Amino acid sequence: MEVHNTMVQAAAVFPTYRNTTPIQRAEFLEKIGVEIEALGPDLIQTAMRESNLPEARLLGERGRTVNQLKLFANLLREGSWVEAVIDSAQPERTPPRPDLRKMLVPMGPVVVFGASNFPFAFSTAGGDTASALAAGCPVVIKGHPGHPDTSAMVFGAMQKAAQACNLPTHVVQHIAGSDFALGQALVEHPETKGVAFTGSLHGGMALVEYARNRKVPIPVFAEMGSLNPVVLMPEKLEQEAESLAKQLAASATLGMGQFCTKPGIVLGVDGEAMDHFIRTWAGEVPSIGVAPMLHAGIHKNYTVGLEKALAQPGLGLLGQTAAEVSGIQPKAALALVDAETFMQNPTLHEEVFGPYALIIKCKDAAELGQVLQALEGQLTLTLMATEADLQKNPALVQSATEIAGRVIVNGVPTGVEVVASMTHGGPFPATTDSRFTSVGSDAIKRWARPVSYQNFPQSILPEALQDGNPLDIWRTVDGVFSK
Amino acid sequence: MEVHNTMVQAAAVFPTYRNTTPIQRAEFLEKIGVEIEALGPDLIQTAMRESNLPEARLLGERGRTVNQLKLFANLLREGSWVEAVIDSAQPERTPPRPDLRKMLVPMGPVVVFGASNFPFAFSTAGGDTASALAAGCPVVIKGHPGHPDTSAMVFGAMQKAAQACNLPTHVVQHIAGSDFALGQALVEHPETKGVAFTGSLHGGMALVEYARNRKVPIPVFAEMGSLNPVVLMPEKLEQEAESLAKQLAASATLGMGQFCTKPGIVLGVDGEAMDHFIRTWAGEVPSIGVAPMLHAGIHKNYTVGLEKALAQPGLGLLGQTAAEVSGIQPKAALALVDAETFMQNPTLHEEVFGPYALIIKCKDAAELGQVLQALEGQLTLTLMATEADLQKNPALVQSATEIAGRVIVNGVPTGVEVVASMTHGGPFPATTDSRFTSVGSDAIKRWARPVSYQNFPQSILPEALQDGNPLDIWRTVDGVFSK
Repeated sequence: MEVHNTMVQAAAVFPTYRNTTPIQRAEFLEKIGVEIEALGPDLIQTAMRESNLPEARLLGERGRTVNQLKLFANLLREGSWVEAVIDSAQPERTPPRPDLRKMLVPMGPVVVFGASNFPFAFSTAGGDTASALAAGCPVVIKGHPGHPDTSAMVFGAMQKAAQACNLPTHVVQHIAGSDFALGQALVEHPETKGVAFTGSLHGGMALVEYARNRKVPIPVFAEMGSLNPVVLMPEKLEQEAESLAKQLAASATLGMGQFCTKPGIVLGVDGEAMDHFIRTWAGEVPSIGVAPMLHAGIHKNYTVGLEKALAQPGLGLLGQTAAEVSGIQPKAALALVDAETFMQNPTLHEEVFGPYALIIKCKDAAELGQVLQALEGQLTLTLMATEADLQKNPALVQSATEIAGRVIVNGVPTGVEVVASMTHGGPFPATTDSRFTSVGSDAIKRWARPVSYQNFPQSILPEALQDGNPLDIWRTVDGVFSK
Repeated sequence: MEVHNTMVQAAAVFPTYRNTTPIQRAEFLEKIGVEIEALGPDLIQTAMRESNLPEARLLGERGRTVNQLKLFANLLREGSWVEAVIDSAQPERTPPRPDLRKMLVPMGPVVVFGASNFPFAFSTAGGDTASALAAGCPVVIKGHPGHPDTSAMVFGAMQKAAQACNLPTHVVQHIAGSDFALGQALVEHPETKGVAFTGSLHGGMALVEYARNRKVPIPVFAEMGSLNPVVLMPEKLEQEAESLAKQLAASATLGMGQFCTKPGIVLGVDGEAMDHFIRTWAGEVPSIGVAPMLHAGIHKNYTVGLEKALAQPGLGLLGQTAAEVSGIQPKAALALVDAETFMQNPTLHEEVFGPYALIIKCKDAAELGQVLQALEGQLTLTLMATEADLQKNPALVQSATEIAGRVIVNGVPTGVEVVASMTHGGPFPATTDSRFTSVGSDAIKRWARPVSYQNFPQSILPEALQDGNPLDIWRTVDGVFSK
């Protein structure tokens, strides 16, 4: 009943909210950022208590979240994201060509399932919410049970912002609870028009299944994690085996490995440099510091997943955290496997969310290429390479772009910039639809659909499509891009 | 086995084809058009024999098909469709911001299921094929069994064009056959990355089901028809009841009603003008000329669908073709129902593909609004309205844009312009994904996904993302749209 009332309210405010001006929505998003900051140290303390994340990290993440809201506010102020296209009438043609104009319009109420690993940036007022609100869609947030108080506080800030901006109360709503049926009811409700999710393959696919079985199926954008392969190319490995090992050891255990873009597998060709790389990384592992994971559920999944991985035949453990761990602290781990064993065992292709990485030793470059071909879709793929390495291996560079949504040269995949050029997405099972991203300004496109207006009088057309271009946006008019 | 070999070949040419230049692909598309025209009267005669469509219509459709290929060729020559975005590195920032660049890349082999009602424009070398080839995806065409010889001839023209352009033979392939299992095998093959379909709800949803049950689900863009509601607004109806009736009588039976955008239901408020409208249209029906339908299957579906519709309680037949019909000639029909009966009977919401329309008489404007709310997603919605009608009813105009992909003022929905501003799409069940269109230049976006390139050396970046902008395309560079 709570779900039904909530979704009906969301649908009821849609006609009002979709008709707000871009500036009104921009001001709303900015105001949400202001209200979140106004929660001050209380919010940070609450999030620390609920997520076990350190203060500095949460301060940074709060900043990132506010900037993300500003990114979408700027996108709205600039205005061209609606992709306005105008093709003028040609009354003299046989048959006469009508006046035809097109722009993106919001889809309707969106349900957002927050992630636990970013209690601000990928949760209540995170990128999914910000992009849907920017598009003109009312949002219903399913608060993550891992940080209920944090979520409630952030939602409170959003309510204040809505009030300050004279927007209807129900433009954002929040439902708390850890009951699985709650999520199902939200996805299945007829007034729900789209769903955003960040989390596990299992969780994401459950939502997809609910969405598919509706009378009217709806799009679910689920970001479901990734192995984020790192490829050590020969010249680079030869030159920098040691520093690469140290860099990856740090990236794989940063924040206890609780990032969707944690490097989970590392590929290299057998040889002296590779052995040096392996020894160096193995030497780093025992001394890696420990901290509690986000919550007991994640710690349990990590422990079970790691145990399962390490029990696979042919897998060798290279090192583990030496310190005693207690409570929900994880032991970081590094393992080694040969390429053939990896390719034959699907269990080794499953993400282990936490501070664990697997090194895959290949006999030669051809076998390394085969491993890449055998991989499923990924959020990121990293090439540790000299320019000559890349120039000599165009097929490998190309296959990297076919596997992943983001290909990185000489960097770690952790760290996802919130910019227009970001793709946080990728082929299945990294996400449910490789044509979209959940980070960066294009995340808004998940929640908008094109509508063509044929022979509309000027007075009835949306401003974005009127002759005078009152919004001063970039448009394609009779094939010419102009402002 | 044929399916397996075909899809493996398609996958094998993908690395070559995706690396062709935009100009090469533009020349290929143009050459396909030239080769289709070179088939001359033979092609038209073959299509006439197989589809029962008249010569003039097929000549027009051939022109439209060639123009459609040119539209995508022009899109490629212009080049900005890849949506290139560049955000420069900020090495001085803490942490340093990497160089990040993004563009659209092709998804991989696409399977196209041609439609029978447009043997050229929505079939073998139609919009689905043209848009996928433009994106850089190899295409496998499942020839429609309604026009096998036409399809084979057009495919021959495509092969000639591929050869003339020095492209690999398997960049386009063709599989003939009416076996249902063939379509299933094509959608289920692991090398298939996307599917295009135009046809019935039943057929489209079968393909969707196959695609969902794959280990790796893939997007199916299925255009599955529509009722294309027409709303008669009061002032307009008052002024032009008679001419509206004649215009709609012609549109609903044009080409024996065999268009996805045929006006299938017409809504108006009870009164003298409405009665005049109904009488006039009813008077037109008996004298409507007859012609054979596309094929026996469509004729049978029409006969069965019409019988089922007319048997629904509360439905009144207003008129039918007076002439004797024979073979696969249909009887055009017009029926009347009151709004309440319509809203309560889901059978009346099903498309009857052929020369049939249903007039829905509403008690008042409020009830008319309720009917709109009760409708499923539509390709088009037409408002017959004076400017004052529209100005007085903003909520109705808005709900029209929520129901349909294209909203038309004072025109008939038949006639789908192939331009950038076209949306041939709409909410489910009109299509499987309201965020895309199958007609117009944006149809290419169904087959492309964004990839971000992080910290790539200039020499390895695709041309579209290189500093010097060698392709001279519009790009977003550090937030500024420029060329």
